[in-house]
Amino acid sequence: MEGDPTLQLRVFDLNCWAIRYLSKRRQERVRLIGDMLRQEGFDLVLLQEVWSERDYSDLKAKLGGCYPFSHYFRSGVIGSGLCVFSRFPILDTLLYQYSLNGYPYMLQHGDWFCGKSVGLVVLAWGSRPLCPCSCQLHAEYCREKDAYLPHRLVQAWELAQFIRHTSKAADMVLLGGDLNMHPEDVGIRLLRGWTGLRDAFAEATRFEGCEDGCTLVPNNCFTVKTELLPFPLGIRIDYILYKAVSSFTVKCEELKTTTGTAPGMDIPFSDHEAVMATLHIRRQGQAADGNLGTAEPTLADVVTEARMEVGVGLRAAQRQRYSTGRMAVLALLLLLLQAAAALGTLAGLAAGQPFPKLSFSLLAFFAIGILLLATGLHLFHTIEVKMLQGTEEQLRMALRALQEHP
Amino acid sequence: MEGDPTLQLRVFDLNCWAIRYLSKRRQERVRLIGDMLRQEGFDLVLLQEVWSERDYSDLKAKLGGCYPFSHYFRSGVIGSGLCVFSRFPILDTLLYQYSLNGYPYMLQHGDWFCGKSVGLVVLAWGSRPLCPCSCQLHAEYCREKDAYLPHRLVQAWELAQFIRHTSKAADMVLLGGDLNMHPEDVGIRLLRGWTGLRDAFAEATRFEGCEDGCTLVPNNCFTVKTELLPFPLGIRIDYILYKAVSSFTVKCEELKTTTGTAPGMDIPFSDHEAVMATLHIRRQGQAADGNLGTAEPTLADVVTEARMEVGVGLRAAQRQRYSTGRMAVLALLLLLLQAAAALGTLAGLAAGQPFPKLSFSLLAFFAIGILLLATGLHLFHTIEVKMLQGTEEQLRMALRALQEHP
Repeated sequence: MEGDPTLQLRVFDLNCWAIRYLSKRRQERVRLIGDMLRQEGFDLVLLQEVWSERDYSDLKAKLGGCYPFSHYFRSGVIGSGLCVFSRFPILDTLLYQYSLNGYPYMLQHGDWFCGKSVGLVVLAWGSRPLCPCSCQLHAEYCREKDAYLPHRLVQAWELAQFIRHTSKAADMVLLGGDLNMHPEDVGIRLLRGWTGLRDAFAEATRFEGCEDGCTLVPNNCFTVKTELLPFPLGIRIDYILYKAVSSFTVKCEELKTTTGTAPGMDIPFSDHEAVMATLHIRRQGQAADGNLGTAEPTLADVVTEARMEVGVGLRAAQRQRYSTGRMAVLALLLLLLQAAAALGTLAGLAAGQPFPKLSFSLLAFFAIGILLLATGLHLFHTIEVKMLQGTEEQLRMALRALQEHP
Repeated sequence: MEGDPTLQLRVFDLNCWAIRYLSKRRQERVRLIGDMLRQEGFDLVLLQEVWSERDYSDLKAKLGGCYPFSHYFRSGVIGSGLCVFSRFPILDTLLYQYSLNGYPYMLQHGDWFCGKSVGLVVLAWGSRPLCPCSCQLHAEYCREKDAYLPHRLVQAWELAQFIRHTSKAADMVLLGGDLNMHPEDVGIRLLRGWTGLRDAFAEATRFEGCEDGCTLVPNNCFTVKTELLPFPLGIRIDYILYKAVSSFTVKCEELKTTTGTAPGMDIPFSDHEAVMATLHIRRQGQAADGNLGTAEPTLADVVTEARMEVGVGLRAAQRQRYSTGRMAVLALLLLLLQAAAALGTLAGLAAGQPFPKLSFSLLAFFAIGILLLATGLHLFHTIEVKMLQGTEEQLRMALRALQEHP
């Protein structure tokens, strides 16, 4: 990189929606994605929701020629779904799994089982390493009453902190992924403000694709149309973000998105649109500003807003911890009462058997079931409370730092 | 720091063994620890196993005068137990929770509930930040048949990777904690080899304390004597490790440990001995070697050995995943059989009620219980398999990197 003052980096990002048995026409789409990637020859490909290792292996086999280096990040029950294909050698990887990621009992949403994470790869890119990240945050199932907002904010904060702490020696930071947040949402303002990352869509000299850069659009046959009713153009939740850290400048020359169906095919690659950026990286004389990218008072407002939302989540989690704990105690009391009654009968204290055996046993089993379930949930919500408290405190610390050193 | 070419840093590290209701004479010992810390005036205090936030608050209130800055890391059900007290302002913090940490059903060991982690604090120390880490790894309960070795190795690897990736812009790396590994164990050789961290005990110019620097010693009245029978001098599992990264050299001038009872008292501070290091940091002209600290062929052997042990753990986890899955399927079959029998009876196909109602219901509840339990365990062991596979692959990648770029 030292010899060449300007370099071009072509990046591809896509949430592939490749869930085994659930995603429509999965194998066909993965094949299409592989064909297109082989044809286009990007420098770096960041994929999300490749939940099946078989799909990853198929892609790896197909793309071995043009992307000789790849990595699949494993986490959670069914994986993180994150993988990276690269023209440059992968020197090292690091996975950070968010501390909160939904609820195991929300089976219909399933985020908890994915082990959502941010995956960092260190690429041998010229003489200095390049450290791009691929990530996905918790999905938003209902915008009006978004029960997962506090979890997504914890994830956005942990993602921002992860990027800040791991990018200190990098020339450039690059993040691609499905952030499940609209551009104006507090989480993305927090992430961008706290890391100084720039939005490729906003910075691009040329843009080609869906209007407003949307990546969930109504004319994609796989999107759920009712969810997009309030947004006739669609929504933008997939991003390529970047920042020059040391003595480099980065410029987004071109940004493209796919627009529904894949070129020359009758189906899209995924229910999300792909985002493709062409970045120009140039070495400059003096070091670029490695500090926070936005004006501090605005950032302080964003941190305050995020802290308030995390606080709302904290109080909800505390209520759930309390009610599950109370339920466990009640179940235990019922069991003890039954045990006392049974012992009383055995000792001949009672005149006769007060309950029929069947109902008595069923009640005991019911109480044991409730006790175990409530205890499990109580432990889970205790962890949730701890992590929300931890994040709230970190946000308070960040706010103090912003106020003390404006 | 730029004005002063040499600086002294006095570091204190202790596993406080402060578990509410379980640790002996906890409050008295926490009071003693606070008194001693106030009296000694270290620059930096790294504590582990401060499980109660009340204990942390008490310490914080007592130490506010001499250590105005502190942080408590929250994670898991009962917390990470990690906290830091500092003379220098804390600018930022980052917590990394290990992906594996024992089993939730091993209630007698309890590590799973702690959310064991590594906590990083960024201190405003002179003109450059100092980033010390406090950490604890999974305990070793039986050295001969150590079922937790693969988990501890995954933790050691994640700790090493965390340090490598977060310390790139630091002048100096400092790690204190209860690593639950003997100095010659593969995990600590991996951690030291992969990060280049030096052992303060081995490097110290002067040493004062328990023989061989042991931190679990027989003449501490709280240690379990039977566990130390094979080690008459005790064992060394608490460490202060350090490394100069950029244009600095670090030297350990003095290392001390406590020796059983606290000075002038009848009880020790904890069941572990405290480790106290005096480090001399000097700015030098040229950059120090930021690469791996040990000779590469040796490191390759260590990585191979670690990978083998992780492989053993992986096969055990796969067996457990299989047997819990089988148990869940059997329970489901039993339930389906019962449902068919019940439906048959209801439809009048059977001559009469083949089972007494009570046994029938008890059996159904038993099957439901086993189904839920086995499914939960199957999910847990699936995550375990994923993480062990991920670590094995990362170790394979590390080995390839070592072989390709010796």
